[in-house]
Amino acid sequence: MPSEFELIARYFVQRNEGETTGVALGAGDDCALLVPTPGQQLAVSVDTSVVDVHFPAGAPAWAVGHRALAVSLSDLAAMGAWARWCTMAVTLPEADEAWLDAFSQGFHALCREYGVALVGGDVTRGELSISVAVHGEVPVGAALCRSGGQADDIIAVTGPLGGGHGGLRAWQQGRRDLDDPLLARYLLPQPRLAAGLALRGLAHCAIDISDGLLADLSHLCDASRLGAELDMTQLPLATGLEALLGTQDARHAALCGGDDYELLFSLPASSLDEARRRLRECGVDLWPVGRLRDGAGIAGVDTRAIKGWQHFPGGSS
Amino acid sequence: MPSEFELIARYFVQRNEGETTGVALGAGDDCALLVPTPGQQLAVSVDTSVVDVHFPAGAPAWAVGHRALAVSLSDLAAMGAWARWCTMAVTLPEADEAWLDAFSQGFHALCREYGVALVGGDVTRGELSISVAVHGEVPVGAALCRSGGQADDIIAVTGPLGGGHGGLRAWQQGRRDLDDPLLARYLLPQPRLAAGLALRGLAHCAIDISDGLLADLSHLCDASRLGAELDMTQLPLATGLEALLGTQDARHAALCGGDDYELLFSLPASSLDEARRRLRECGVDLWPVGRLRDGAGIAGVDTRAIKGWQHFPGGSS
Repeated sequence: MPSEFELIARYFVQRNEGETTGVALGAGDDCALLVPTPGQQLAVSVDTSVVDVHFPAGAPAWAVGHRALAVSLSDLAAMGAWARWCTMAVTLPEADEAWLDAFSQGFHALCREYGVALVGGDVTRGELSISVAVHGEVPVGAALCRSGGQADDIIAVTGPLGGGHGGLRAWQQGRRDLDDPLLARYLLPQPRLAAGLALRGLAHCAIDISDGLLADLSHLCDASRLGAELDMTQLPLATGLEALLGTQDARHAALCGGDDYELLFSLPASSLDEARRRLRECGVDLWPVGRLRDGAGIAGVDTRAIKGWQHFPGGSS
Repeated sequence: MPSEFELIARYFVQRNEGETTGVALGAGDDCALLVPTPGQQLAVSVDTSVVDVHFPAGAPAWAVGHRALAVSLSDLAAMGAWARWCTMAVTLPEADEAWLDAFSQGFHALCREYGVALVGGDVTRGELSISVAVHGEVPVGAALCRSGGQADDIIAVTGPLGGGHGGLRAWQQGRRDLDDPLLARYLLPQPRLAAGLALRGLAHCAIDISDGLLADLSHLCDASRLGAELDMTQLPLATGLEALLGTQDARHAALCGGDDYELLFSLPASSLDEARRRLRECGVDLWPVGRLRDGAGIAGVDTRAIKGWQHFPGGSS
């Protein structure tokens, strides 16, 4: 059986053929040495994906690799930052080389797609989980924070919702074909990095939808000290979601399901056309779903009956 | 039971009272926004600590918090980098608030000691593990890489060895008092950040001893394309180690035990006095343990019978 060092070398260091801009020293020493771009702030985030919590035990390893990186990159997208570097710590029960091979292929393919360099890693023994820390750059003053929303801003999203939850339900029903649109939304989310960049200077605030539209809109509202009004009839639903769940549960999934990884943002009505134009250039649409307003709370939905996904549910209201 | 967001807010964001220099936006948004120092490279590393692999299930939570951060900071020390920021992803089976309270106290205490800002985190459900990514800074050209060793360099360490292994054995024998020097070495390692800084410009190469002197010296030798000769009679042994294990096993632990987190470095004999003087100012001694030389392999020990700790043992020779 190969050693920890051999696994790291074979599946992570040697395959790291992508971007090397700004990497003075890559993986293989005690630290990587990176060269930040003058005048840019460093945007940093970390997300952990745990088996049977964030992805099912039987998910294809390459999809697990893709997904673990995608959900972290999504945080950079929500900040309007451009992705530069990442580190990846994987914990797995045994040194399963076939699994690691496919996992690292999925991971590195997404690295290449967005020009991200994997600059450090750790392989440890334990229950399967992957923790990815991402590093992006954004010019001073250009980041899309949660706190910048303004009353009367239009609230909009970059894509149809509910697919993350719908894909989980489809998986639980035995579907396994990742060409299925719902399964793809669940297991192969696309980080909206180009969209985040396009929204710089237009959006007042942004967040990615990982906990569900309602929960993440609450985070935006709390940070911006505003309330919001949603228009349930305007919620874009993921392809195949109504067929799977029926209209009422599909809307519920779009509101609360989470794991969609679209951007949720606010902008003045006067910027709507320009934002739509820029997003289309990135291959993304813009769906208005409501409006920010003075006050607190989210109107237009019954928030008592529904809650976003939380890993330790309870407590908060 | 509190929500994931409440746990993060209560135990990680609110307690983050330490260093804020270079933090334009701290934890609580999609990303933190950091301000790199002009002219410095960014040193980045990640380490995961898994229950019953890296620390025992019954270890005090504050020690687990200290240790999880310390082992990552140790990588910055080995690079000669100064610690600035960290992110921390904790996975735990249930939202045990007493455990999280003590854990975060140990983590934040070490943050304060070294002026490190916790700028992001993730709390997920699963087997107990902690993944800490650290970010330090080092002037261009000043980093202590593994590859810089030169033939005839003196090989030295910053402290006594074998304590990590000895502490594990003491724990297994039922000792629980963290004032015990061996238990302290195992569960409360001190990252040698000041020592790493002091060695800039003197040491040709450096690494931290996490896998054992022999394994880590092999990494140094491989990267520097050199061999080495160890003097077994010069190995500094941790306090209490010989009493616990006997002389032969104590030397074995010092060679192969791992988890010591002292720095292992090489430097020309002409720099020895200056290095010793600088290290003493940091409260650290310098122990010469051998010499780098042309060729391959490590002389002075029987490398066939002994191996450094690896999480997936086997394979490598």
